Parts: sequence; structure tokens; C-alpha cells
Amino acid sequence: MTLPRALAFDVFGTVVDWRTSIARESAEFLPQVGLAGRDPATFADAWRAQYIAAMIGMKKSGRAFVPLDVLHREMLETALREAGADPTGLDEALLADWTRAWHRLDPWPDAVAGLTRLKARFPIVTLSNGNVALLLAMARRGGLAWDAILGAEVSGFYKPDPRAYMRTAELLAVAPGELAFVAAHHGDLAGARACGLMCAYVDRPAEYGGAPAPDAHHEQAWEWSATSLTDLADQLGC
Amino acid sequence: MTLPRALAFDVFGTVVDWRTSIARESAEFLPQVGLAGRDPATFADAWRAQYIAAMIGMKKSGRAFVPLDVLHREMLETALREAGADPTGLDEALLADWTRAWHRLDPWPDAVAGLTRLKARFPIVTLSNGNVALLLAMARRGGLAWDAILGAEVSGFYKPDPRAYMRTAELLAVAPGELAFVAAHHGDLAGARACGLMCAYVDRPAEYGGAPAPDAHHEQAWEWSATSLTDLADQLGC
Repeated sequence: MTLPRALAFDVFGTVVDWRTSIARESAEFLPQVGLAGRDPATFADAWRAQYIAAMIGMKKSGRAFVPLDVLHREMLETALREAGADPTGLDEALLADWTRAWHRLDPWPDAVAGLTRLKARFPIVTLSNGNVALLLAMARRGGLAWDAILGAEVSGFYKPDPRAYMRTAELLAVAPGELAFVAAHHGDLAGARACGLMCAYVDRPAEYGGAPAPDAHHEQAWEWSATSLTDLADQLGC
Repeated sequence: MTLPRALAFDVFGTVVDWRTSIARESAEFLPQVGLAGRDPATFADAWRAQYIAAMIGMKKSGRAFVPLDVLHREMLETALREAGADPTGLDEALLADWTRAWHRLDPWPDAVAGLTRLKARFPIVTLSNGNVALLLAMARRGGLAWDAILGAEVSGFYKPDPRAYMRTAELLAVAPGELAFVAAHHGDLAGARACGLMCAYVDRPAEYGGAPAPDAHHEQAWEWSATSLTDLADQLGC
């Protein structure tokens, strides 16, 4: 297998455990909005469940690009309405802080060690739908030593729009086929492969709390398949 | 003095010593193109001297944005012609490698220690006209642990276009007045101040080999004035 010249990473679910982190934060916020009885993990799932629809909606509607922070806030308000709380009556600072819970996601236990080993040999960059401020705050808090923060906001297009993957390769001055995309999601990997990128799958069976992944039907034989980022480092000789 | 929420850095001349590094590399390349008798530092100056004109030319001509790597190559060819060598007859790989000398600039002696201290308290990002691939390679080689690589290529505009400074603040999700720009160049700082950024000057008297800076007439009273990045870290309480 030819080695890539750089590694680009999906982040939510691949590098960080959004569900546990959002549930932990929501457990603090839910009682403050009169939803003390709600299960925080179920609320995290309801918040995240709108994500794919939001991405598709951005593309179909022709809406001008807005950072994911803006979409997370809109999705939070929808999730609150579904849970029976009217967000228009809630404290603005509370809603803003709750939205920024996505800046405070914990890395999976293997992530920092795996990225550190991979970085010794390859440039490591984000190729995430997270906006720059979000990913930067998350990286500083979690110790994710990205060489650059690239992806949706820098390209102006959300994955799986091909321009998000292609622009990342262009900014790295490598051909698409020289860039490996690392993700826990078969649908995202399929988008990268369609652009000519090499693909590394990382299995994260706990991402949805044991529930099946919504994009399992996109599974293919990827260039690499790993059980963790340290396993990927082993496979890439790092 | 109110402290900034993030620090954005000019790079060429402020963080790295382009003149010594380009002279060192050119000393290897000049004999290979029949220019063994040329002084490498003078050649470095002639190469860099076209920089301001290239930036202004990009804006005036309405030429679509191209990465600085492309402009460095064009400036190299001009410098070679001025020195009496016809670049059209030269080896492509040699010219490409010589152009990438700008990826291999050495940090000033205080830069890594200063940035490391500043990073412990503030997010540190580039706000450079260098392209992402150039700055990424330079950072990995030199140990510059940027939190993000922002600036001209990501914004689509070269400094001192206001959009380069404003877009950097926008991507960091801070107001322009919450961002401090760090540079050794009064002209660049003046561009940042016109956008509302806070400004920190770092004196680099050796940047032009002792010759006066071309933008000295832009000097103003900046929020901070430091003799090195470690001195700036002292002043910012890091």
C-alpha cells in the first residue's frame, strides 16, 4: 500500500466522543430549562439526529454558508421544542453556553496517543464540518495537536460536498490520491473516495451508544480499517 | 491594557528569519545555475524585494488569488533574470526545490520559546501571506505549534487587504478588537489597526541585514512593543 503524504481527520465521532460529552453537559443544563426528567443521552441523540438533515438542508436550500456553531444553536432550539421547552423564553447566555458544549467534547481514550504517533510521521489536519473556532477550542482543551484546521468552514462547503474534500487536498498542495481521510463513518469515507482520496476507517462501536450507525449501508473495503487511532498508527508504521 | 482573546502572527520576518535562511539555501543553488559568483544574501534581498510589488500587483490587476508558492516561483524567475540566468533553460525540479526554500525558514532564536509560553495562555494562529502548505511545512520543521493556520490563502486576500485581517477574526469568532496582531512590520500593523485589531510590534533589527525597513514611515504607538517573542510573553504575563 502506498503511504499518504498527509492525513485528514473527521472529528465528531472519529476523534472525540460527542454523545457522552453532550449528555454530560446536557445533564447540567436540562434542569435549568424545566426538563429535569429528560434522559441526557436521549437529548444528545435528538440534538445530533438533526445533523445530517441540516447538512443536506444547507445544500438543497442554497442558504449561504454559516458556521456549524450557528447550526448547532438552531438544532438545540429544535431539540428543546421537541422536548417541550420553548427556547424563546430562555436565557441567552445559557443557550450560548449549551451550544458551546460542542467545543468541549472529550477525545476517545486512544485519540491523543494515536494522533501524537501519527503526527511524528504525517501532517495531521482536520477535515471536519466543525468551524475553526469550535475545533480550535476543542483541540486546546483536549490536547489534539493538529498541524492545521481545515474542512467545511475554510472550504465554504459542508461534507459530503466534494469541494470540502478537494479544497483540503488543494490547501495541503497534495493530489487527492496522496491524501488519506480518516473517519468512523462509511458515508463520509464514501464521499472522500468519490474525490479520489485514500480512506482509513476507524471503528467506534460506542458512538451511538450501541445503536447501529445510520450510514452503515455505505460500507466498502477501505484502504485501512482500524479499531482505534493507535491501531491505525501501528498499521501506518508510526 | 485589556488582554486579547487570541494572538495572530505575521510570520516572515516576525517569527522566522527569511534572509539568513534564503541566503543559506541560495548559496547551494546559485552555483548550479551558473551564478557561483553572486552573493547569496544579495540574491535573497533581490528575491524578497519584489514581494511588496507582487502583493500590490495582485490587488491592482484583479488577478485571481494564487498561493504565495506561485508568486515565490515567479519572483525567483525574475530574480534569476536580473542576475543574468535564463530560468527557461533550468531544471524544473531544481527551481521547484529552490522555491520551497521558503518552506524551510529558521525561526528566530526566541521564537519557539516565546510562542510556547504565549500558547499556554492564548490561542496562537498565523495571519500570514504564506499559503497553508508552506506554513504547515515550516511549522513542522521549526517546531512552531500554531493552533490554526489562517491568513491570506484561507481568506482569499493578501495583507494589507482588510479582508485578510477581518476574516481571521471572524474565523476565530472574536471581534476585531479582541484579537492582537503581532508583527515586526509597521506597515502590516497599520493595516491591522485600521481594521480595529490590537497591535504588538516585535523589533527585528536584523531582518534586512541591518538595512532600514522599507515601511518604517508607518511607525505608530502600538499597544505593545517588544524586543522578542519571549519579551512579549513577559509583557502579556505568560
